[in-house]
Amino acid sequence: MSLLKPWRLLARRPIFADRPFITVEADDVELPDGRRVDNFYRVTVPDYVSIVAVTPERSFVMLRQYKHGIGRVSTTTPAGRMEEGEAPLAAAKRELLEETGYEAARWEAGGRFVMAANLRFTTMNAFFAFDVRKIAEPNSGDLEEMEVHLLDEGEIRQALTDGRVADAGSALALSLFLLRPPAS
Amino acid sequence: MSLLKPWRLLARRPIFADRPFITVEADDVELPDGRRVDNFYRVTVPDYVSIVAVTPERSFVMLRQYKHGIGRVSTTTPAGRMEEGEAPLAAAKRELLEETGYEAARWEAGGRFVMAANLRFTTMNAFFAFDVRKIAEPNSGDLEEMEVHLLDEGEIRQALTDGRVADAGSALALSLFLLRPPAS
Repeated sequence: MSLLKPWRLLARRPIFADRPFITVEADDVELPDGRRVDNFYRVTVPDYVSIVAVTPERSFVMLRQYKHGIGRVSTTTPAGRMEEGEAPLAAAKRELLEETGYEAARWEAGGRFVMAANLRFTTMNAFFAFDVRKIAEPNSGDLEEMEVHLLDEGEIRQALTDGRVADAGSALALSLFLLRPPAS
Repeated sequence: MSLLKPWRLLARRPIFADRPFITVEADDVELPDGRRVDNFYRVTVPDYVSIVAVTPERSFVMLRQYKHGIGRVSTTTPAGRMEEGEAPLAAAKRELLEETGYEAARWEAGGRFVMAANLRFTTMNAFFAFDVRKIAEPNSGDLEEMEVHLLDEGEIRQALTDGRVADAGSALALSLFLLRPPAS
């Protein structure tokens, strides 16, 4: 097996924190070859869920919203951060309902992925929600205005490659869903 | 078309910077409904490239490396940050050669995606490198020790779902490659 060795953490210093939104820390580390590296930064924002929600007719329940970080409107999956102590699946069910008004007959976990594995930025927990149907009006409470819209699979594939899906977490959750074996 | 409106930026304050590695800023913004939100954070680390490199026999040239941010070894695509003023494709060619010793007969752009579109964290530029062959020994100059290894498509699909590919950028680049229409 691999001989890749972990780095040794010598010190971790707080740089900035506004909990629960963000913390920035600086690690001093010793590499396996003995070199010391100071100020290897570590940025943490809350872990979140990203939901690929599909109707019985295989339409995808998506959002369009203005994302301030990139300064433009983007097509995204329903998504949101996990509240303190909240399990990922519970967060996925809550966010889907709040942001779209839909609930699902069946859920499947789609994997956990770190955004920027050098810095431990945030973990995206992907979920696949099947046989979703609308049971309420959206009421996200988020800062962003959102429009719920339905896309078919061809439109999703197109949106992944033409820049409409700008957010890597949305793109990854959708891609993983499309790569699922057709039988399941 | 969409009535989604951009937010108005009222002020942007520097919080922390260690250039070119990281900057943290705080935006005060006005939402379309008139509400004011202070301290909407903006974290920027350098944009980077992530390369799906495939041999004529359709083996994927991958890396295994210890990622300090998550504290464990992960299977990743070759990747690295763009140097100042460097074009994305030039960075992709450089990083592939430095990290693996391979060069490609043909390149294709795979899209641009923002890690965390709320915060504008970093942009991942995906590239697909075809008919790669080894022309040199790896010499990345990176802090991480790396092992180059070749995986076939079945192993890539497995690694995407069993946690071996922990990094969202690697997972997204690989997924987009696997979703390409088979004809091209």
